[in-house]
Amino acid sequence: MKKLIDHFTLTLGSQNVLTGEDIGTRYTKDSSVNKPQTPIAVLRPSSTEQISEILSYCNQHKQKVVVQGGMTGVVGGSTPQAGEIAISLERLSAVEEIDKASMTMTVQAGTPLQKVQEAAKEDDVNFPLDLGSRGSCTIGGNIATNAGGNQVIRYGMTRALVLGLEVVLADGTVLSSMNKMLKNNAGMDLKQLFIGSEGILGIITRAVLRVFPQPLSKCSAMCAVDNFDAVIEFLHRASSELGGSVNSFEVMWDNYYHTVLREIDQLTSPFEENFPFYVLLETTGSNQQLDDQKFEQFLGAALEDKLIQDAAIAQSQQQAESFWNIRDGVGLLLNRLPPLANFDVSVPISKMKAFIDSVNNQLKHEFENIDIMIFGHLGDSNLHIIARTGKEEDVKTIRNIVYQITGEFHGSISAEHGIGTEKKNYLSSSRTTEEIEIMKKLKQTLDPENILNSGRVI
Amino acid sequence: MKKLIDHFTLTLGSQNVLTGEDIGTRYTKDSSVNKPQTPIAVLRPSSTEQISEILSYCNQHKQKVVVQGGMTGVVGGSTPQAGEIAISLERLSAVEEIDKASMTMTVQAGTPLQKVQEAAKEDDVNFPLDLGSRGSCTIGGNIATNAGGNQVIRYGMTRALVLGLEVVLADGTVLSSMNKMLKNNAGMDLKQLFIGSEGILGIITRAVLRVFPQPLSKCSAMCAVDNFDAVIEFLHRASSELGGSVNSFEVMWDNYYHTVLREIDQLTSPFEENFPFYVLLETTGSNQQLDDQKFEQFLGAALEDKLIQDAAIAQSQQQAESFWNIRDGVGLLLNRLPPLANFDVSVPISKMKAFIDSVNNQLKHEFENIDIMIFGHLGDSNLHIIARTGKEEDVKTIRNIVYQITGEFHGSISAEHGIGTEKKNYLSSSRTTEEIEIMKKLKQTLDPENILNSGRVI
Repeated sequence: MKKLIDHFTLTLGSQNVLTGEDIGTRYTKDSSVNKPQTPIAVLRPSSTEQISEILSYCNQHKQKVVVQGGMTGVVGGSTPQAGEIAISLERLSAVEEIDKASMTMTVQAGTPLQKVQEAAKEDDVNFPLDLGSRGSCTIGGNIATNAGGNQVIRYGMTRALVLGLEVVLADGTVLSSMNKMLKNNAGMDLKQLFIGSEGILGIITRAVLRVFPQPLSKCSAMCAVDNFDAVIEFLHRASSELGGSVNSFEVMWDNYYHTVLREIDQLTSPFEENFPFYVLLETTGSNQQLDDQKFEQFLGAALEDKLIQDAAIAQSQQQAESFWNIRDGVGLLLNRLPPLANFDVSVPISKMKAFIDSVNNQLKHEFENIDIMIFGHLGDSNLHIIARTGKEEDVKTIRNIVYQITGEFHGSISAEHGIGTEKKNYLSSSRTTEEIEIMKKLKQTLDPENILNSGRVI
Repeated sequence: MKKLIDHFTLTLGSQNVLTGEDIGTRYTKDSSVNKPQTPIAVLRPSSTEQISEILSYCNQHKQKVVVQGGMTGVVGGSTPQAGEIAISLERLSAVEEIDKASMTMTVQAGTPLQKVQEAAKEDDVNFPLDLGSRGSCTIGGNIATNAGGNQVIRYGMTRALVLGLEVVLADGTVLSSMNKMLKNNAGMDLKQLFIGSEGILGIITRAVLRVFPQPLSKCSAMCAVDNFDAVIEFLHRASSELGGSVNSFEVMWDNYYHTVLREIDQLTSPFEENFPFYVLLETTGSNQQLDDQKFEQFLGAALEDKLIQDAAIAQSQQQAESFWNIRDGVGLLLNRLPPLANFDVSVPISKMKAFIDSVNNQLKHEFENIDIMIFGHLGDSNLHIIARTGKEEDVKTIRNIVYQITGEFHGSISAEHGIGTEKKNYLSSSRTTEEIEIMKKLKQTLDPENILNSGRVI
């Protein structure tokens, strides 16, 4: 141990090797509910070369490492396990280039998402990945977990936004695929292996991201709907009649909507009546006048056809934000309501109604008093479900029930949050034995000593 | 050999095992320029189970196989090599399901692309992958080669359109990942390994595809531009001001445009004058009236700002097709003009001008009389270059020059056509030693006996 620490102190400088009391709480736990664990050391490299050197050394000495970005993951992937060294990417933080002609930007992995977004905006382009933890999460973590967020229906998951990647493999090899083109079919697209595999195959150090023109117009509305079939039809009509301009189609069930309004004082509904479903619809485009006209026509026709019961079009950016605050109120809710079980599942949209019926029925059959709150990125098949009886001992049973139903409906136990350590035992609900076997083979091929984020995912 | 044939005759039926004279020319060569080669047998399985059984047997007997779809590939990937058995997927052809609520369709790999497009259209949805060989190429081949085509700028490459995949591995293992959701982060996204790896890691048997609403409006124009910087600015303006509605931004250099008009009698330019560049711009949307208005306003402003010199807006579907015929005339041109060198490269848009200058200068320096024709999907960084001196013996030198320059500009030697056997020797122009090493390791992991499309890509 001492030899290891001495080695890194020599190569990184003592201020970049933290041990004992110097290891702050930021390095001991991510945003999951699991217990903090102090790593045997925290290394803070500032370059790809240093990371390569660290991994090469750790691989030779079979020293396990955990990779840390913004520590906002919710499945325990970055929380150290006993005997691990933490490698924090916090010093690998820079926007290296914005190439407007090619519509790309080149960033270092430890750069916070919000810094990436702001750098893009300063250069009058748009990096459309956006999620609640934007201020803390890092782009490397976003890529390693293939983060989703609020604009997937328009721009895809993080995977769709990554053109090039630089990764350091377990043995220290630097795999550089810093491609800047939309099209590149020269051999296997290796970067795909590392996107979404939660750091178990390599450490992402740099990336080329795709950027888009800044939207020149935005339309937002909160809509009230009285049954689930109408929600689905409303989604399809919006996709068709608003062209490619739909950025967000966020659905909130009444059980979520009214709980969040009750729990958080500052929030108010734009409607006086209550409805079974609420849809937050947002489009962006290029011509505010023509787009407003189209948006109003679309909502007018949906009202006339009784597809929606009411609609409040945001008259200002402030009002649009007040709609989003209801949707994003979940953050506060999760802090106030534990113990609870919190799900991030996806199921085919055609099976979603039956899935939710099944979840409701089985949970209510098992527990006399249970609150169930549902909301989600419906256009992406993604539902977030919060279920609580108020008792910690019920959480595991609730999880077992919901994940089993998810498997039966060929859904995913993790739409966007990943597997980490928290969902590892449920992976077989969503993946076959053969799939898990191949994941293990790939891990064995790329990290034969099993030093990288060991024990996560598989 | 006889034992092998007897075995397959027993399991597949004699009509599905072709040997000797019964092997038609369709099985001896793809659409590349390489030489025909008769395989030792052609197997025509009709199910995933049969393919699994075939591979399991071949793997045990170290019998190499070549996978065949529509035989429209241009890099030699499906042309048999000596001693190989061909597995044709032609009988694995069906659209199994269209799930409109989930916006997915489930297809078998041997289904021709056009049949997939038509089935989607019949159900009033849109499968947006489209390329010239649509009538013959199969969706399995499109996925295995990550096909591009004419609408990548809007909908992405084939990779972006695949939600789920079923693959048979070299040892016969069926790897089923028939996911129907936009979001699924439950473990590694294994399908990404097989998309674009040209059948060297497994045989794709079924897929879940993403479909979109049918466009309700379309606007097309041929535009004349007088310098390359203006072409780039026109691209960025279109992306910004026409929102997410740009489907195609095809650029033709005058050397291509005028050659194709001269060579093919039926084609006419909408302009009386000649210009250095021509852009075929196409948008689709949801409201013909409002979209026409936006499109005309956009082109009017571009004319006024002298960004473009002239524009012809298609007044009918027929006129739009006449514009596309100029772009697609390359098919006829390639048949009429050999010997020639034909390139499918991509380079970062910011370097494209310097790249083309370098290609022109070096080729003209090397050859006194050389015709160079350029066109491409500029928004995707993808250029097609045709260069000819009229002499077969110059082709190799031309290739060496262009691929070397492509490497120097960090471009790709294959934007959309793949590597196959034809470009294998040039792979290192676009990929590093470490990347090629990892490709080989992955091949070794998934196909240790090297029976699948051996000798292709790497």
